[in-house]
Amino acid sequence: MTSAWGELVSRLEGITDLVSAVKLFEWDQASIMPAAGGPARARASSTLEGLIHERLTDPKIGDLLSRLEEEADALDEQQRASVRVLKRDYEKATKVPEELVKALAIARGNAYQAWAQARPADDFSILQPQLETLIDLKKQEADALGWEGERYDALLDQFEPGMKTAEVQVMFDELVDGLRPIVDAVLDAVDDPPAFLARDYDEDKQMEFCRWLIKQLDFDLDRGRLDTSPHPFTIAIGIGDVRQTTRAEANALMTSIYATIHETGHALYEQGIPDETRDLPIGTCPSLGIHESQSRMWENQVGRSRAYTDFLLPHLKERFPEELGMVDLEEFYRGVNHPRRTLIRVTADELTYNLHVALRFELEIAMFRDELDVADLPDAWDAAMEKYVGIRPTDHADGVLQDMHWSISALGYFPTYTLGTIYSAAFFAQAEKELGDLSDELRAGATTRLFEWLREKVHRHGYMYDAKDLAEQVVGGPVTATALLDYLRSKYGELYSASI
Amino acid sequence: MTSAWGELVSRLEGITDLVSAVKLFEWDQASIMPAAGGPARARASSTLEGLIHERLTDPKIGDLLSRLEEEADALDEQQRASVRVLKRDYEKATKVPEELVKALAIARGNAYQAWAQARPADDFSILQPQLETLIDLKKQEADALGWEGERYDALLDQFEPGMKTAEVQVMFDELVDGLRPIVDAVLDAVDDPPAFLARDYDEDKQMEFCRWLIKQLDFDLDRGRLDTSPHPFTIAIGIGDVRQTTRAEANALMTSIYATIHETGHALYEQGIPDETRDLPIGTCPSLGIHESQSRMWENQVGRSRAYTDFLLPHLKERFPEELGMVDLEEFYRGVNHPRRTLIRVTADELTYNLHVALRFELEIAMFRDELDVADLPDAWDAAMEKYVGIRPTDHADGVLQDMHWSISALGYFPTYTLGTIYSAAFFAQAEKELGDLSDELRAGATTRLFEWLREKVHRHGYMYDAKDLAEQVVGGPVTATALLDYLRSKYGELYSASI
Repeated sequence: MTSAWGELVSRLEGITDLVSAVKLFEWDQASIMPAAGGPARARASSTLEGLIHERLTDPKIGDLLSRLEEEADALDEQQRASVRVLKRDYEKATKVPEELVKALAIARGNAYQAWAQARPADDFSILQPQLETLIDLKKQEADALGWEGERYDALLDQFEPGMKTAEVQVMFDELVDGLRPIVDAVLDAVDDPPAFLARDYDEDKQMEFCRWLIKQLDFDLDRGRLDTSPHPFTIAIGIGDVRQTTRAEANALMTSIYATIHETGHALYEQGIPDETRDLPIGTCPSLGIHESQSRMWENQVGRSRAYTDFLLPHLKERFPEELGMVDLEEFYRGVNHPRRTLIRVTADELTYNLHVALRFELEIAMFRDELDVADLPDAWDAAMEKYVGIRPTDHADGVLQDMHWSISALGYFPTYTLGTIYSAAFFAQAEKELGDLSDELRAGATTRLFEWLREKVHRHGYMYDAKDLAEQVVGGPVTATALLDYLRSKYGELYSASI
Repeated sequence: MTSAWGELVSRLEGITDLVSAVKLFEWDQASIMPAAGGPARARASSTLEGLIHERLTDPKIGDLLSRLEEEADALDEQQRASVRVLKRDYEKATKVPEELVKALAIARGNAYQAWAQARPADDFSILQPQLETLIDLKKQEADALGWEGERYDALLDQFEPGMKTAEVQVMFDELVDGLRPIVDAVLDAVDDPPAFLARDYDEDKQMEFCRWLIKQLDFDLDRGRLDTSPHPFTIAIGIGDVRQTTRAEANALMTSIYATIHETGHALYEQGIPDETRDLPIGTCPSLGIHESQSRMWENQVGRSRAYTDFLLPHLKERFPEELGMVDLEEFYRGVNHPRRTLIRVTADELTYNLHVALRFELEIAMFRDELDVADLPDAWDAAMEKYVGIRPTDHADGVLQDMHWSISALGYFPTYTLGTIYSAAFFAQAEKELGDLSDELRAGATTRLFEWLREKVHRHGYMYDAKDLAEQVVGGPVTATALLDYLRSKYGELYSASI
């Protein structure tokens, strides 16, 4: 071990400890903190985040990185990967002028507050000026970070490092073109949703079931927790402490089950990143898309499969004999895969979900190419919704104002949802290629072989490789939307005997 | 506002934010963290504590304090009190050499680990060498901090600032002398405990009851939480976020109820410290004794009074009709006030509790006067237990090894339990002097007038005054053990018709 490496690690350990506090703040606030603690918590979080930023951008980190690049021959593979990842983060963090960082933080706060008022009031004009300021600052940020192809690349790179807009566009184009005929055929054939979806289910029993389910899925409760929060999420507080949340609402049993399976996908990934890399830049995921590939695969390819729903239903009947006693396996499977045209992304089904993302991707790119003004966003939204999903919003609250993401400056973020879905289908297809057809196992709830395959192929690598490289390693070639389209075509073709 | 004051406050705000993170770490670890998260959490806590220490001992704090002392005329009362409190803390923190601070941290860790092995093994020799090292370092620490009367003063001052060993000794002497005849008379007259104390009570219903009870006692759940932990405690994470814990065990209903009332006393105090002082050195309690006065008063003078048990029992019967249906008010009152000679401090009753503290106080003083070696501690313990409580331990596990306090370096800490009890009785007597007899109100569960009196007399002052001065202000003269003795004499005289 070189002395520069030792010094770097010691600095990174201190940063990890501060990050752990920020994450606990975050988890706590989102799940159990008394609301009155909000203002004090906001200040404390921002103080700690400031400290973290200060330490990450300390010029000594830059010096150490330069020294380590000179000594690269003396470093092992993990160390070299760490230097590469950290150098990129360091450059990103130091390229943006302090003034701009501060202005962005303020604009983000203002835009979020405006959004929180604008949505219930169904009034885009409340958000518009704040969003204009924010988008303008984000353009400055992108320019400060630098880009080659187009400005949106710099935004995308914050969530999906190394991926270019043009590459994502190719995948989206393939996906949307392929989806259109499937969606049209299926949605024409679809019946009313089965009655069991809308029944009331005891919330405590839902939580009991979810707790049982995550153990079935190999989530290690000795090294993590399951709690509730209005918006389910997963967070790694530190080594041995990965927390996921779900929500249980009486009239939404399927939401709690599939949110739980989704978060378990994230949580298994976090539990699989090797402890000994947790203080290093490689001790994390390479991109949000890769993270989402894990949640989507468990939720969809596993959780919504005919085989796994055959496993789930009998166990659900034990807990809800009255509500589900008369539901058969076929009805249950069709129920959890009931597609429909909806205005709202978060409640969209597996089939139409990515169309909601595609419209956001299109609008974001247009804004950052200076082809779309914020003022014209509501009309552009409604038109794009009609183009992609085939229905038109009747108000802005369930239209352009539905997501908080833009107001909190998550721009370049939406496409990672669909990238993750594309990865998930490609990974699952590869898993079945290597492990054989998994449906007999899934029907018995035996997911450990798949889980261990993911450990081996994805989890244990952390951020040793860029997302694109990791994905190519997993599937043995470039990742396209083909596997996802094949999966959807086959599944929904069978379900709805549509000629697709 | 002077510029020095502004700069000081801005530094203190940053420290408060770090302290808030450490407190959330602490709460989380003691209540809900997965055990596997322990090692990472220990490192993260110690990193943050190191940062806090660094900032509190920054020479710039010393400079600012000097400037503010020169500008004292321009400061208001709160500012002057803050400067006074912080200066004392700053001097304490900077007087102890860095080397000694580190050696103490290591010795504490070693002694705690040794204690954790020694107690189950019933083997004092495992702890002895580590405790010798720790006590030796604590003597060096006391000498570095400086003292006038005797060395133990410096230890006591860390928990009960401004209070001297000799002053505490006077109170303890009065108390112990007065207690002896009461204890002897009562314990001779006492019957077997009533059967309801040992029945099994559903744990969820216990928690429901505790949750109902803390609302009755004016704990503001919008600004706090109630959770469970093996050792109940209360902690203020930040403004608007005061958390208390209790425990519910099937065969220990009274433990969960009285632990809850006790912690509610602490928690009401924390909720009553004015928000606007929370970043300042005065935004806290002046001493552990004052804090304990609040928990003890609610637990004993209120919670164990005949009037309040008359209020509690009918509500308990609603939840536990089978277990408590046949218990009458008199039997219930006697049951929750059932004294006995026990070896264990934490399960001791109100009457004998302070004798357990007195023996620890005596042994601690003897060690710091170099009159007692650690090697002789077990024998000294057994002899003192016989002298104070009237029974002799049969092993060390339930003797000298029962408490973890010494091994975690909490020396000078035990006496604050009894000081708190003395304050609690004196404060309650004063409250009844000013508000009139409270028993009719307590019988109806109406505690708000007492609560508001405590807000006015104690809570709202935070650390504006030293503990002794605050206590004298509250009772209008010096505090002695007389009120506590009067209270115990009257209560237990009535209960056991003993000629005391």
